[in-house]
Amino acid sequence: MTPALTKMGIAAVEAARSMATLPGQQRADALRAMAAALPGIRSELQQANAADIEAARAKGLADPLIARLAITDKIFAYMQNRLNQVAALPDPVGRVLEGHIRPNNLKVEKISVPIGVIGIIYESRPNVTTDAAAVCIKSGNAVILRGGSESLRTNIVLADAMIRAATEHGLPESAIQILRTPGHETVSELLRMDRYIDVLIPRGGKGLIRRISEASRIPVIKHYDGICHLYLAEDAPVKMAVELAVNSKCQRVEVCNALEKVLIHAQAVPRLLPALVEGFTAQGVELRGCPRCCELSASIIPATEEDWTAEYLAPILAIKIVDGDAEAIEHINRYGSGHTDGIVTNALERVERFVRSIDSSSVMVNASTRLSGGGDYGMGAVVGISTDKLHARGPVGPNELTSYKWVAYGQGHLRG
Amino acid sequence: MTPALTKMGIAAVEAARSMATLPGQQRADALRAMAAALPGIRSELQQANAADIEAARAKGLADPLIARLAITDKIFAYMQNRLNQVAALPDPVGRVLEGHIRPNNLKVEKISVPIGVIGIIYESRPNVTTDAAAVCIKSGNAVILRGGSESLRTNIVLADAMIRAATEHGLPESAIQILRTPGHETVSELLRMDRYIDVLIPRGGKGLIRRISEASRIPVIKHYDGICHLYLAEDAPVKMAVELAVNSKCQRVEVCNALEKVLIHAQAVPRLLPALVEGFTAQGVELRGCPRCCELSASIIPATEEDWTAEYLAPILAIKIVDGDAEAIEHINRYGSGHTDGIVTNALERVERFVRSIDSSSVMVNASTRLSGGGDYGMGAVVGISTDKLHARGPVGPNELTSYKWVAYGQGHLRG
Repeated sequence: MTPALTKMGIAAVEAARSMATLPGQQRADALRAMAAALPGIRSELQQANAADIEAARAKGLADPLIARLAITDKIFAYMQNRLNQVAALPDPVGRVLEGHIRPNNLKVEKISVPIGVIGIIYESRPNVTTDAAAVCIKSGNAVILRGGSESLRTNIVLADAMIRAATEHGLPESAIQILRTPGHETVSELLRMDRYIDVLIPRGGKGLIRRISEASRIPVIKHYDGICHLYLAEDAPVKMAVELAVNSKCQRVEVCNALEKVLIHAQAVPRLLPALVEGFTAQGVELRGCPRCCELSASIIPATEEDWTAEYLAPILAIKIVDGDAEAIEHINRYGSGHTDGIVTNALERVERFVRSIDSSSVMVNASTRLSGGGDYGMGAVVGISTDKLHARGPVGPNELTSYKWVAYGQGHLRG
Repeated sequence: MTPALTKMGIAAVEAARSMATLPGQQRADALRAMAAALPGIRSELQQANAADIEAARAKGLADPLIARLAITDKIFAYMQNRLNQVAALPDPVGRVLEGHIRPNNLKVEKISVPIGVIGIIYESRPNVTTDAAAVCIKSGNAVILRGGSESLRTNIVLADAMIRAATEHGLPESAIQILRTPGHETVSELLRMDRYIDVLIPRGGKGLIRRISEASRIPVIKHYDGICHLYLAEDAPVKMAVELAVNSKCQRVEVCNALEKVLIHAQAVPRLLPALVEGFTAQGVELRGCPRCCELSASIIPATEEDWTAEYLAPILAIKIVDGDAEAIEHINRYGSGHTDGIVTNALERVERFVRSIDSSSVMVNASTRLSGGGDYGMGAVVGISTDKLHARGPVGPNELTSYKWVAYGQGHLRG
């Protein structure tokens, strides 16, 4: 590890220790001050952002990637609002998660505490700089940010403004740190900082996440594919089924909780399939299906085995007819990615079985898969959606960036 | 991976899926049946155990290690009781961890679910076979056991009895599996089963844990050193301070929550040190100390820098005089291992600060460090004490072997 990174690591650990003792009010005030500081750096930020965009163009970056770099008025307002929203959330630190007085009068409490030092490695969008810092500071952690090289100038201006505001409000100077040199080497160095960093959260494509979790000995909160299913059960009402399927797929196609597959109970096919095909084709969605589907509709082209495990993130959807709830459950658990899967039915027993059997971080009952996530679950703000099962599963918000400690209060209690 | 292990992995995943849908009552009944099955295999178990011990002696294993292999009457009764105790614990699966109805009437619940497949890698003591299986089954997981080679015969007899009893009570046959071949290669193979195993829990010495967590890409719940401290604050009452220090150290010296260091506030030294030295020397504890301590007592030999980070697990203890609470906190956070650290004081403000500032999985206030653990916290049974901060910190019981899923109940809810 370079001396510079070792220094950052030591500073982060010290900052985390000090953060853990600050009242929640002070962390919230600092977040509000960070939001209030943004207008003052607006022109500086615009210059840095323009320089980043120019450099990206010169490097021949594709237009959609360049678009992601831009701090538009909308994104600027969003960043500021998000800092204020996170400030207003309940304090995730100091929650009594469990507690009881034991028969021998020993009082035992399990209290939420910050994790410590969190490393965030992200790709192009510069708003992750403020989003991630907000959630980490809210939960009393120190954070080391490592954004994409192509938005480095923008990220540094944002981070410096946040650091100044936070420090003025009594937060340790190293509560927020940012890597200021581009290049893959600094990422590799970061992955080796297991003495200092408690958890890494990569935000970006599958490739980035895989690379990081394979190379690092620091625990990683991973955010993999969303191969999301909606199962239309035998009794699924036509209107609700079609609306939910179309909304789940089309409200936004390129995100991880967008629908990718529809399973239909064979008995419901005559009622549902025509309306479903009509709904999707009206939205320009390409439909691929199992042989039984294709036989019934000329608008469905044959699906290959790869289609069942594909995360299209595009206006394509695969449909399969199943002969019962058990087959639907088995298909989802085998081909899905454990992200978000739903059922449309009014039968309570069917719901109970589906909810219990589907091994996914979110199970939606008569609700759009697009509603799975921190915002719609009332978490306020998240730094990602975990597809892991340990520590955090599903949306990762301020509560998920805490650990806990046990505290036992005795009056001279000995072990016999 | 060998075909045999791949087969085990696939079977474990299938068993875990099925376990997740079984009612808690059925898991509890299976555990009671497992307990009830033990007397029937007693003579078979004694033969296997005698063969293990004989082979260990022939290999020249040291006596204390051979003693650990033996299934004494006491250990036999303990194993049976423990299975029944775990059966009687509340079901860790299906707890509603959070829940609310959102303003748009979407009901959101966070429900505890089994993690999936748990790998337990342990050293000599054969009672881990029943203990670990009990906690894993209680929490609805499938378990793959890999015990020490020297107790393989004993472990297999125990596992087979449990498997028979569990299967008779409707649990899937592969809910409990055991590796039946000795040798390091099978452990190495196990570490590569990241497609099938969700978490590994090594039970044994530091070397084992380090080897496993460095070699495996499967998440590991680690159980490292207990370099436990007790800080005797300025106002610490003499009697309570001495009793707690002696009990924390001497009740059992070779365990991870045994006391290793005492810090004394300088102002309290005249009151406390003589009684403390007397208490420890009466118990045959060798005392090492900072220069100020050594000056004050001829019974204390000088400590080296290594003494402050040593986990003796022996009748040795290091004492240091500090000039205030801040120095004590700083010392513990720097030299400790984040396992269990305590304070003796009657000053509420001091307690508040110590509890908030000490970065350890257990903080004891006027209570013996030996009381940190699943039993005294009311958790019923544990598979270890985690020194990690993610997922589980401190004692790892049935609740800690669960993950969760989010379930959203709508009535056709779309995303706008």
